[in-house]
Amino acid sequence: MNSTDAVRKAPAKDPWQLPDVSGLVVGVLGGTGDQGRGLAYRLARAGQRVIVGSRAAGRAQEAAAELGHGVEGADNAECARRSDIVIVAVPWEGHAATLGSLREELAGKLVVDCVNPLGFDKKGAYAIRPDEGSAAEQAAALLPDSRVTAAFHHLSAVLLKDPAVEEIDTDVMVLGEVRADCELVQALAGRIPGMRGVFAGRLRNAHQVESLVANLISVNRRYKAHAGLRVTDV
Amino acid sequence: MNSTDAVRKAPAKDPWQLPDVSGLVVGVLGGTGDQGRGLAYRLARAGQRVIVGSRAAGRAQEAAAELGHGVEGADNAECARRSDIVIVAVPWEGHAATLGSLREELAGKLVVDCVNPLGFDKKGAYAIRPDEGSAAEQAAALLPDSRVTAAFHHLSAVLLKDPAVEEIDTDVMVLGEVRADCELVQALAGRIPGMRGVFAGRLRNAHQVESLVANLISVNRRYKAHAGLRVTDV
Repeated sequence: MNSTDAVRKAPAKDPWQLPDVSGLVVGVLGGTGDQGRGLAYRLARAGQRVIVGSRAAGRAQEAAAELGHGVEGADNAECARRSDIVIVAVPWEGHAATLGSLREELAGKLVVDCVNPLGFDKKGAYAIRPDEGSAAEQAAALLPDSRVTAAFHHLSAVLLKDPAVEEIDTDVMVLGEVRADCELVQALAGRIPGMRGVFAGRLRNAHQVESLVANLISVNRRYKAHAGLRVTDV
Repeated sequence: MNSTDAVRKAPAKDPWQLPDVSGLVVGVLGGTGDQGRGLAYRLARAGQRVIVGSRAAGRAQEAAAELGHGVEGADNAECARRSDIVIVAVPWEGHAATLGSLREELAGKLVVDCVNPLGFDKKGAYAIRPDEGSAAEQAAALLPDSRVTAAFHHLSAVLLKDPAVEEIDTDVMVLGEVRADCELVQALAGRIPGMRGVFAGRLRNAHQVESLVANLISVNRRYKAHAGLRVTDV
Protein backbone atom coordinates (compact mmCIF):
# COMPACT_ATOMS: atom_id res chain seq x y z
CA MET A 1 0.00 0.00 0.00
CA ASN A 2 1.38 3.44 -0.83
CA SER A 3 0.85 6.61 1.13
CA THR A 4 -2.09 7.72 -1.01
CA ASP A 5 -3.99 4.54 -0.19
CA ALA A 6 -3.20 5.06 3.47
CA VAL A 7 -4.86 8.46 3.35
CA ARG A 8 -7.88 7.17 1.47
CA LYS A 9 -8.66 4.32 3.84
CA ALA A 10 -7.74 4.39 7.52
CA PRO A 11 -5.57 1.47 8.58
CA ALA A 12 -7.62 -1.41 9.93
CA LYS A 13 -6.19 -1.18 13.44
CA ASP A 14 -9.43 -1.37 15.34
CA PRO A 15 -11.01 -3.93 15.70
CA TRP A 16 -7.95 -6.06 15.04
CA GLN A 17 -5.18 -4.32 16.99
CA LEU A 18 -6.34 -3.37 20.41
CA PRO A 19 -4.75 -2.71 23.81
CA ASP A 20 -3.32 -5.56 25.86
CA VAL A 21 -5.79 -6.31 28.63
CA SER A 22 -4.32 -9.64 29.68
CA GLY A 23 -3.03 -8.21 32.97
CA LEU A 24 -6.32 -6.65 34.08
CA VAL A 25 -8.55 -8.15 36.74
CA VAL A 26 -12.14 -8.61 35.59
CA GLY A 27 -14.98 -8.61 38.09
CA VAL A 28 -18.40 -9.98 37.22
CA LEU A 29 -21.26 -8.62 39.32
CA GLY A 30 -24.05 -11.14 39.18
CA GLY A 31 -21.40 -13.71 38.54
CA THR A 32 -23.53 -16.51 39.92
CA GLY A 33 -26.27 -16.03 37.30
CA ASP A 34 -26.24 -17.82 33.95
CA GLN A 35 -24.82 -14.98 31.87
CA GLY A 36 -22.29 -13.86 34.47
CA ARG A 37 -21.12 -17.36 35.18
CA GLY A 38 -20.74 -18.07 31.47
CA LEU A 39 -18.73 -14.91 30.85
CA ALA A 40 -16.54 -15.52 33.90
CA TYR A 41 -15.83 -19.03 32.69
CA ARG A 42 -14.88 -17.96 29.16
CA LEU A 43 -12.65 -15.11 30.31
CA ALA A 44 -10.90 -17.20 32.93
CA ARG A 45 -10.44 -20.04 30.47
CA ALA A 46 -8.80 -17.51 28.13
CA GLY A 47 -6.31 -16.67 30.88
CA GLN A 48 -7.94 -13.59 32.39
CA ARG A 49 -7.95 -13.14 36.14
CA VAL A 50 -11.62 -13.15 37.15
CA ILE A 51 -13.54 -12.46 40.35
CA VAL A 52 -17.23 -13.31 40.43
CA GLY A 53 -19.33 -11.17 42.69
CA SER A 54 -22.61 -11.92 44.41
CA ARG A 55 -24.61 -10.44 47.27
CA ALA A 56 -23.39 -13.30 49.46
CA ALA A 57 -19.66 -13.99 49.40
CA GLY A 58 -20.29 -17.66 50.07
CA ARG A 59 -22.43 -18.11 46.99
CA ALA A 60 -19.80 -16.35 44.89
CA GLN A 61 -17.06 -18.57 46.26
CA GLU A 62 -19.08 -21.68 45.50
CA ALA A 63 -19.63 -20.52 41.92
CA ALA A 64 -15.94 -19.68 41.61
CA ALA A 65 -14.92 -23.13 42.78
CA GLU A 66 -17.21 -24.72 40.20
CA LEU A 67 -15.86 -22.51 37.42
CA GLY A 68 -12.22 -23.32 38.12
CA HIS A 69 -9.51 -21.67 36.01
CA GLY A 70 -8.44 -19.61 39.02
CA VAL A 71 -11.76 -17.77 39.34
CA GLU A 72 -12.25 -16.20 42.76
CA GLY A 73 -15.49 -15.30 44.50
CA ALA A 74 -16.34 -12.30 46.69
CA ASP A 75 -19.28 -10.19 47.69
CA ASN A 76 -20.19 -7.53 45.11
CA ALA A 77 -18.41 -4.69 46.93
CA GLU A 78 -15.11 -6.55 47.24
CA CYS A 79 -15.44 -7.82 43.68
CA ALA A 80 -15.81 -4.22 42.47
CA ARG A 81 -12.97 -2.87 44.61
CA ARG A 82 -10.46 -5.49 43.50
CA SER A 83 -11.25 -5.37 39.77
CA ASP A 84 -10.03 -3.11 36.96
CA ILE A 85 -12.92 -3.92 34.66
CA VAL A 86 -16.32 -4.70 36.16
CA ILE A 87 -18.94 -6.50 34.09
CA VAL A 88 -22.49 -5.92 35.30
CA ALA A 89 -24.48 -9.13 34.73
CA VAL A 90 -27.11 -8.80 37.44
CA PRO A 91 -30.81 -9.37 36.70
CA TRP A 92 -32.51 -6.24 35.39
CA GLU A 93 -34.76 -6.21 38.43
CA GLY A 94 -31.75 -5.68 40.72
CA HIS A 95 -29.78 -3.43 38.37
CA ALA A 96 -30.47 -0.01 39.85
CA ALA A 97 -30.25 -1.12 43.48
CA THR A 98 -27.00 -3.03 43.00
CA LEU A 99 -25.24 -0.26 41.11
CA GLY A 100 -26.58 2.47 43.37
CA SER A 101 -25.03 0.72 46.36
CA LEU A 102 -21.63 0.33 44.69
CA ARG A 103 -21.01 3.87 43.53
CA GLU A 104 -17.89 4.30 45.65
CA GLU A 105 -16.41 0.89 44.91
CA LEU A 106 -16.95 1.43 41.18
CA ALA A 107 -15.46 4.94 41.07
CA GLY A 108 -12.78 5.12 38.40
CA LYS A 109 -13.49 1.60 37.20
CA LEU A 110 -14.27 0.57 33.65
CA VAL A 111 -17.84 -0.70 33.95
CA VAL A 112 -19.29 -2.93 31.23
CA ASP A 113 -23.04 -3.25 31.41
CA CYS A 114 -24.43 -6.34 29.70
CA VAL A 115 -27.92 -6.29 31.15
CA ASN A 116 -30.93 -6.74 28.85
CA PRO A 117 -34.15 -5.28 30.26
CA LEU A 118 -36.72 -7.76 28.97
CA GLY A 119 -40.19 -8.85 29.91
CA PHE A 120 -41.75 -12.22 29.14
CA ASP A 121 -45.32 -13.30 28.51
CA LYS A 122 -47.13 -16.00 26.54
CA LYS A 123 -45.97 -14.47 23.26
CA GLY A 124 -42.32 -14.60 24.27
CA ALA A 125 -39.85 -11.86 25.16
CA TYR A 126 -40.32 -8.14 24.71
CA ALA A 127 -38.24 -5.04 25.36
CA ILE A 128 -38.62 -2.98 28.50
CA ARG A 129 -37.60 0.65 28.15
CA PRO A 130 -35.93 2.04 31.27
CA ASP A 131 -36.68 5.66 32.17
CA GLU A 132 -33.04 6.49 31.49
CA GLY A 133 -33.31 5.03 27.97
CA SER A 134 -31.41 1.80 28.56
CA ALA A 135 -29.76 -0.24 31.27
CA ALA A 136 -26.42 1.23 30.23
CA GLU A 137 -27.69 4.80 30.54
CA GLN A 138 -29.16 3.93 33.93
CA ALA A 139 -25.72 2.68 34.96
CA ALA A 140 -24.11 5.86 33.69
CA ALA A 141 -26.62 7.96 35.66
CA LEU A 142 -26.03 5.97 38.85
CA LEU A 143 -22.24 5.85 38.47
CA PRO A 144 -21.08 9.36 37.54
CA ASP A 145 -17.52 8.56 38.67
CA SER A 146 -17.17 5.38 36.60
CA ARG A 147 -16.35 4.85 32.93
CA VAL A 148 -19.52 3.15 31.74
CA THR A 149 -19.69 1.10 28.56
CA ALA A 150 -22.10 -1.58 27.32
CA ALA A 151 -21.28 -4.91 25.68
CA PHE A 152 -21.75 -8.70 25.79
CA HIS A 153 -25.53 -8.50 25.32
CA HIS A 154 -26.08 -11.15 22.69
CA LEU A 155 -24.25 -14.14 24.08
CA SER A 156 -25.79 -17.52 24.62
CA ALA A 157 -25.25 -18.59 28.22
CA VAL A 158 -25.68 -22.18 27.06
CA LEU A 159 -22.71 -21.90 24.69
CA LEU A 160 -20.61 -19.87 27.13
CA LYS A 161 -20.95 -22.50 29.84
CA ASP A 162 -20.44 -25.56 27.66
CA PRO A 163 -16.82 -26.72 28.06
CA ALA A 164 -17.08 -28.67 24.79
CA VAL A 165 -17.62 -25.42 22.83
CA GLU A 166 -14.18 -24.20 21.78
CA GLU A 167 -15.15 -20.99 19.99
CA ILE A 168 -18.01 -18.54 20.43
CA ASP A 169 -19.02 -17.57 16.91
CA THR A 170 -20.18 -13.98 17.41
CA ASP A 171 -19.17 -10.36 17.37
CA VAL A 172 -19.70 -8.29 20.49
CA MET A 173 -21.16 -4.81 19.99
CA VAL A 174 -19.38 -2.37 22.29
CA LEU A 175 -20.97 0.98 23.13
CA GLY A 176 -19.55 3.90 25.02
CA GLU A 177 -18.62 7.54 25.05
CA VAL A 178 -14.83 7.27 25.27
CA ARG A 179 -12.91 5.54 22.54
CA ALA A 180 -10.10 4.26 24.77
CA ASP A 181 -12.61 2.63 27.12
CA CYS A 182 -14.44 0.97 24.25
CA GLU A 183 -11.18 -0.36 22.89
CA LEU A 184 -10.37 -1.99 26.22
CA VAL A 185 -13.75 -3.72 26.19
CA GLN A 186 -13.30 -4.75 22.58
CA ALA A 187 -9.93 -6.20 23.51
CA LEU A 188 -11.51 -8.08 26.39
CA ALA A 189 -14.11 -9.59 24.06
CA GLY A 190 -11.33 -10.55 21.69
CA ARG A 191 -9.68 -12.63 24.41
CA ILE A 192 -12.40 -15.23 23.99
CA PRO A 193 -11.75 -17.47 20.97
CA GLY A 194 -14.16 -16.76 18.12
CA MET A 195 -15.35 -13.48 19.61
CA ARG A 196 -14.56 -10.03 18.30
CA GLY A 197 -15.37 -6.67 19.83
CA VAL A 198 -16.79 -4.10 17.43
CA PHE A 199 -17.51 -0.49 18.34
CA ALA A 200 -21.23 0.11 17.76
CA GLY A 201 -22.04 3.60 18.96
CA ARG A 202 -22.76 5.78 21.96
CA LEU A 203 -24.72 4.82 25.06
CA ARG A 204 -27.80 6.67 23.81
CA ASN A 205 -28.04 3.91 21.21
CA ALA A 206 -27.75 1.09 23.76
CA HIS A 207 -31.48 0.41 24.13
CA GLN A 208 -31.86 -1.30 20.77
CA VAL A 209 -28.74 -3.39 21.33
CA GLU A 210 -30.02 -4.52 24.71
CA SER A 211 -33.53 -5.16 23.36
CA LEU A 212 -32.36 -7.12 20.34
CA VAL A 213 -32.01 -10.08 22.67
CA ALA A 214 -35.80 -10.41 22.43
CA ASN A 215 -35.36 -11.01 18.71
CA LEU A 216 -32.54 -13.46 19.20
CA ILE A 217 -34.79 -15.40 21.57
CA SER A 218 -37.34 -15.62 18.74
CA VAL A 219 -34.59 -16.77 16.39
CA ASN A 220 -33.50 -19.41 18.88
CA ARG A 221 -37.05 -20.70 19.30
CA ARG A 222 -37.77 -20.87 15.60
CA TYR A 223 -34.47 -22.44 14.58
CA LYS A 224 -33.57 -24.35 17.73
CA ALA A 225 -30.34 -22.37 17.66
CA HIS A 226 -28.03 -20.41 19.94
CA ALA A 227 -27.85 -17.41 17.67
CA GLY A 228 -25.12 -14.81 17.69
CA LEU A 229 -24.43 -11.86 15.42
CA ARG A 230 -21.62 -11.04 13.03
CA VAL A 231 -21.07 -7.57 11.66
CA THR A 232 -20.15 -7.90 7.99
CA ASP A 233 -17.69 -5.70 6.07
CA VAL A 234 -15.69 -4.98 9.25
CA MET B 1 -28.93 -38.86 10.13
CA ASN B 2 -31.18 -41.49 11.72
CA SER B 3 -34.74 -40.97 12.84
CA THR B 4 -33.74 -40.26 16.43
CA ASP B 5 -31.61 -37.33 15.31
CA ALA B 6 -34.51 -36.11 13.20
CA VAL B 7 -36.70 -35.98 16.26
CA ARG B 8 -34.09 -34.24 18.35
CA LYS B 9 -33.47 -31.40 15.91
CA ALA B 10 -36.19 -30.04 13.63
CA PRO B 11 -35.36 -30.28 9.94
CA ALA B 12 -33.62 -27.14 8.71
CA LYS B 13 -36.37 -26.22 6.24
CA ASP B 14 -36.69 -22.57 7.13
CA PRO B 15 -34.67 -20.46 6.38
CA TRP B 16 -33.35 -22.60 3.55
CA GLN B 17 -36.48 -24.00 1.93
CA LEU B 18 -39.07 -21.33 1.45
CA PRO B 19 -42.03 -20.66 -0.85
CA ASP B 20 -41.47 -19.76 -4.49
CA VAL B 21 -42.05 -16.03 -4.84
CA SER B 22 -40.52 -15.64 -8.27
CA GLY B 23 -43.92 -15.02 -9.88
CA LEU B 24 -45.03 -12.27 -7.50
CA VAL B 25 -45.03 -8.59 -8.40
CA VAL B 26 -43.15 -6.45 -5.89
CA GLY B 27 -44.04 -2.81 -5.44
CA VAL B 28 -41.69 -0.39 -3.71
CA LEU B 29 -43.35 2.68 -2.20
CA GLY B 30 -40.73 5.35 -1.94
CA GLY B 31 -38.99 3.65 -4.81
CA THR B 32 -37.24 6.81 -5.88
CA GLY B 33 -35.34 7.17 -2.57
CA ASP B 34 -31.95 5.60 -1.96
CA GLN B 35 -33.13 2.55 -0.06
CA GLY B 36 -36.16 1.91 -2.26
CA ARG B 37 -34.23 2.36 -5.45
CA GLY B 38 -31.49 0.03 -4.23
CA LEU B 39 -33.96 -2.69 -3.23
CA ALA B 40 -35.87 -2.34 -6.49
CA TYR B 41 -32.64 -2.69 -8.44
CA ARG B 42 -31.50 -5.81 -6.57
CA LEU B 43 -34.87 -7.55 -6.78
CA ALA B 44 -35.32 -6.77 -10.48
CA ARG B 45 -31.77 -7.85 -11.21
CA ALA B 46 -32.60 -11.16 -9.50
CA GLY B 47 -35.50 -11.60 -11.91
CA GLN B 48 -38.38 -10.28 -9.81
CA ARG B 49 -41.04 -8.13 -11.47
CA VAL B 50 -40.80 -4.74 -9.73
CA ILE B 51 -42.86 -1.55 -9.79
CA VAL B 52 -41.41 1.51 -8.09
CA GLY B 53 -43.95 3.92 -6.66
CA SER B 54 -43.66 7.61 -5.97
CA ARG B 55 -46.09 10.45 -5.30
CA ALA B 56 -45.55 11.59 -8.88
CA ALA B 57 -45.86 8.90 -11.55
CA GLY B 58 -43.38 10.76 -13.74
CA ARG B 59 -40.63 10.64 -11.12
CA ALA B 60 -41.27 6.94 -10.60
CA GLN B 61 -41.08 6.26 -14.32
CA GLU B 62 -37.79 8.14 -14.58
CA ALA B 63 -36.34 6.11 -11.72
CA ALA B 64 -37.63 2.90 -13.30
CA ALA B 65 -35.99 3.73 -16.61
CA GLU B 66 -32.67 4.33 -14.86
CA LEU B 67 -32.93 1.08 -12.93
CA GLY B 68 -33.57 -1.06 -16.02
CA HIS B 69 -34.14 -4.81 -15.59
CA GLY B 70 -37.80 -4.33 -16.54
CA VAL B 71 -38.64 -2.12 -13.57
CA GLU B 72 -41.81 -0.09 -14.05
CA GLY B 73 -42.84 3.19 -12.43
CA ALA B 74 -46.23 4.33 -11.19
CA ASP B 75 -47.77 6.62 -8.62
CA ASN B 76 -47.97 5.06 -5.16
CA ALA B 77 -51.63 4.07 -5.45
CA GLU B 78 -51.19 2.26 -8.75
CA CYS B 79 -47.96 0.69 -7.50
CA ALA B 80 -49.84 -0.70 -4.49
CA ARG B 81 -52.82 -1.91 -6.52
CA ARG B 82 -50.75 -3.78 -9.07
CA SER B 83 -48.36 -5.47 -6.61
CA ASP B 84 -48.62 -8.66 -4.57
CA ILE B 85 -45.94 -7.65 -2.09
CA VAL B 86 -45.49 -3.98 -1.25
CA ILE B 87 -42.25 -2.77 0.32
CA VAL B 88 -42.61 0.49 2.24
CA ALA B 89 -39.40 2.48 1.81
CA VAL B 90 -40.70 6.02 2.24
CA PRO B 91 -38.96 8.51 4.54
CA TRP B 92 -40.13 8.19 8.15
CA GLU B 93 -41.51 11.71 7.99
CA GLY B 94 -44.00 10.67 5.30
CA HIS B 95 -44.70 7.19 6.63
CA ALA B 96 -48.02 7.71 8.38
CA ALA B 97 -49.48 10.01 5.72
CA THR B 98 -48.50 7.78 2.82
CA LEU B 99 -49.83 4.59 4.37
CA GLY B 100 -52.96 6.25 5.71
CA SER B 101 -53.84 7.34 2.17
CA LEU B 102 -53.30 3.86 0.69
CA ARG B 103 -55.42 1.77 3.05
CA GLU B 104 -57.76 0.59 0.31
CA GLU B 105 -55.08 -0.10 -2.28
CA LEU B 106 -53.05 -2.08 0.27
CA ALA B 107 -55.97 -4.18 1.54
CA GLY B 108 -55.09 -7.87 1.36
CA LYS B 109 -51.52 -7.14 0.28
CA LEU B 110 -48.39 -8.41 1.96
CA VAL B 111 -46.80 -5.19 3.21
CA VAL B 112 -43.11 -5.15 4.14
CA ASP B 113 -42.11 -2.13 6.18
CA CYS B 114 -38.40 -1.31 6.02
CA VAL B 115 -38.53 2.20 7.46
CA ASN B 116 -36.07 3.21 10.20
CA PRO B 117 -37.29 6.10 12.35
CA LEU B 118 -34.05 7.93 13.08
CA GLY B 119 -33.01 11.40 14.07
CA PHE B 120 -29.63 12.99 13.41
CA ASP B 121 -27.60 15.56 15.27
CA LYS B 122 -23.93 16.45 15.77
CA LYS B 123 -23.34 13.20 17.64
CA GLY B 124 -24.71 11.09 14.82
CA ALA B 125 -27.89 9.07 14.48
CA TYR B 126 -30.32 8.16 17.24
CA ALA B 127 -33.52 6.18 17.49
CA ILE B 128 -36.93 7.81 17.37
CA ARG B 129 -39.69 5.89 19.13
CA PRO B 130 -43.03 6.14 17.32
CA ASP B 131 -46.15 6.32 19.51
CA GLU B 132 -47.20 2.94 18.11
CA GLY B 133 -43.86 1.41 19.19
CA SER B 134 -42.24 1.16 15.78
CA ALA B 135 -42.75 2.08 12.16
CA ALA B 136 -43.97 -1.46 11.53
CA GLU B 137 -46.56 -1.24 14.30
CA GLN B 138 -47.65 2.13 12.96
CA ALA B 139 -48.13 0.49 9.57
CA ALA B 140 -50.13 -2.33 11.15
CA ALA B 141 -52.34 0.20 12.95
CA LEU B 142 -52.95 2.20 9.77
CA LEU B 143 -53.48 -0.86 7.58
CA PRO B 144 -55.82 -3.21 9.45
CA ASP B 145 -56.76 -5.01 6.21
CA SER B 146 -53.16 -5.69 5.13
CA ARG B 147 -50.69 -8.38 6.16
CA VAL B 148 -47.94 -6.24 7.69
CA THR B 149 -44.39 -7.50 8.18
CA ALA B 150 -41.07 -5.73 8.67
CA ALA B 151 -37.74 -6.48 6.99
CA PHE B 152 -34.85 -5.07 4.96
CA HIS B 153 -33.83 -2.55 7.63
CA HIS B 154 -30.09 -3.03 7.71
CA LEU B 155 -29.11 -2.79 4.08
CA SER B 156 -26.54 -0.41 2.72
CA ALA B 157 -28.08 1.64 -0.10
CA VAL B 158 -24.55 2.18 -1.41
CA LEU B 159 -23.99 -1.54 -1.86
CA LEU B 160 -27.51 -2.20 -3.16
CA LYS B 161 -27.11 0.36 -5.91
CA ASP B 162 -23.57 -0.52 -6.98
CA PRO B 163 -23.78 -2.72 -10.10
CA ALA B 164 -20.23 -3.96 -9.45
CA VAL B 165 -21.36 -5.59 -6.18
CA GLU B 166 -22.42 -9.15 -7.01
CA GLU B 167 -23.51 -10.31 -3.58
CA ILE B 168 -24.97 -8.54 -0.55
CA ASP B 169 -23.30 -10.14 2.46
CA THR B 170 -26.05 -9.92 5.07
CA ASP B 171 -28.99 -11.65 6.64
CA VAL B 172 -32.35 -9.90 6.65
CA MET B 173 -34.32 -10.00 9.88
CA VAL B 174 -37.99 -10.60 9.07
CA LEU B 175 -40.67 -9.77 11.64
CA GLY B 176 -44.37 -10.46 11.58
CA GLU B 177 -47.34 -12.11 13.20
CA VAL B 178 -48.14 -14.76 10.59
CA ARG B 179 -45.59 -17.41 9.76
CA ALA B 180 -46.65 -17.86 6.12
CA ASP B 181 -46.30 -14.12 5.49
CA CYS B 182 -42.86 -14.03 7.08
CA GLU B 183 -41.76 -16.96 4.97
CA LEU B 184 -42.77 -15.15 1.80
CA VAL B 185 -40.68 -12.16 2.83
CA GLN B 186 -37.78 -14.41 3.79
CA ALA B 187 -38.04 -16.02 0.37
CA LEU B 188 -38.03 -12.61 -1.27
CA ALA B 189 -34.85 -11.65 0.60
CA GLY B 190 -33.31 -14.91 -0.47
CA ARG B 191 -33.81 -13.99 -4.12
CA ILE B 192 -30.95 -11.51 -3.81
CA PRO B 193 -27.55 -13.21 -4.02
CA GLY B 194 -25.77 -13.28 -0.66
CA MET B 195 -28.90 -12.36 1.29
CA ARG B 196 -30.86 -14.66 3.54
CA GLY B 197 -34.16 -13.99 5.28
CA VAL B 198 -34.29 -15.04 8.93
CA PHE B 199 -37.41 -14.89 11.09
CA ALA B 200 -36.66 -12.58 14.01
CA GLY B 201 -39.83 -12.15 16.01
CA ARG B 202 -43.17 -10.37 16.23
CA LEU B 203 -43.90 -6.79 15.29
CA ARG B 204 -43.82 -5.70 18.93
CA ASN B 205 -40.09 -6.35 18.73
CA ALA B 206 -39.60 -4.30 15.56
CA HIS B 207 -38.43 -1.09 17.25
CA GLN B 208 -35.01 -2.39 18.16
CA VAL B 209 -34.50 -3.85 14.71
CA GLU B 210 -35.42 -0.55 13.09
CA SER B 211 -33.29 1.45 15.54
CA LEU B 212 -30.23 -0.74 15.19
CA VAL B 213 -29.52 1.17 12.01
CA ALA B 214 -28.23 3.97 14.25
CA ASN B 215 -25.60 1.54 15.54
CA LEU B 216 -24.70 0.36 12.07
CA ILE B 217 -24.18 3.99 11.08
CA SER B 218 -21.67 4.25 13.96
CA VAL B 219 -19.99 1.07 12.77
CA ASN B 220 -19.78 2.44 9.25
CA ARG B 221 -18.24 5.69 10.44
CA ARG B 222 -15.67 4.04 12.66
CA TYR B 223 -14.62 1.34 10.21
CA LYS B 224 -15.32 3.08 6.91
CA ALA B 225 -17.52 0.10 6.14
CA HIS B 226 -20.93 -0.77 4.74
CA ALA B 227 -21.84 -3.06 7.59
CA GLY B 228 -24.45 -5.78 7.47
CA LEU B 229 -25.44 -8.46 9.98
CA ARG B 230 -25.25 -12.22 9.95
CA VAL B 231 -27.14 -14.38 12.41
CA THR B 232 -24.84 -17.20 13.50
CA ASP B 233 -25.87 -20.79 14.31
CA VAL B 234 -28.85 -20.58 11.90
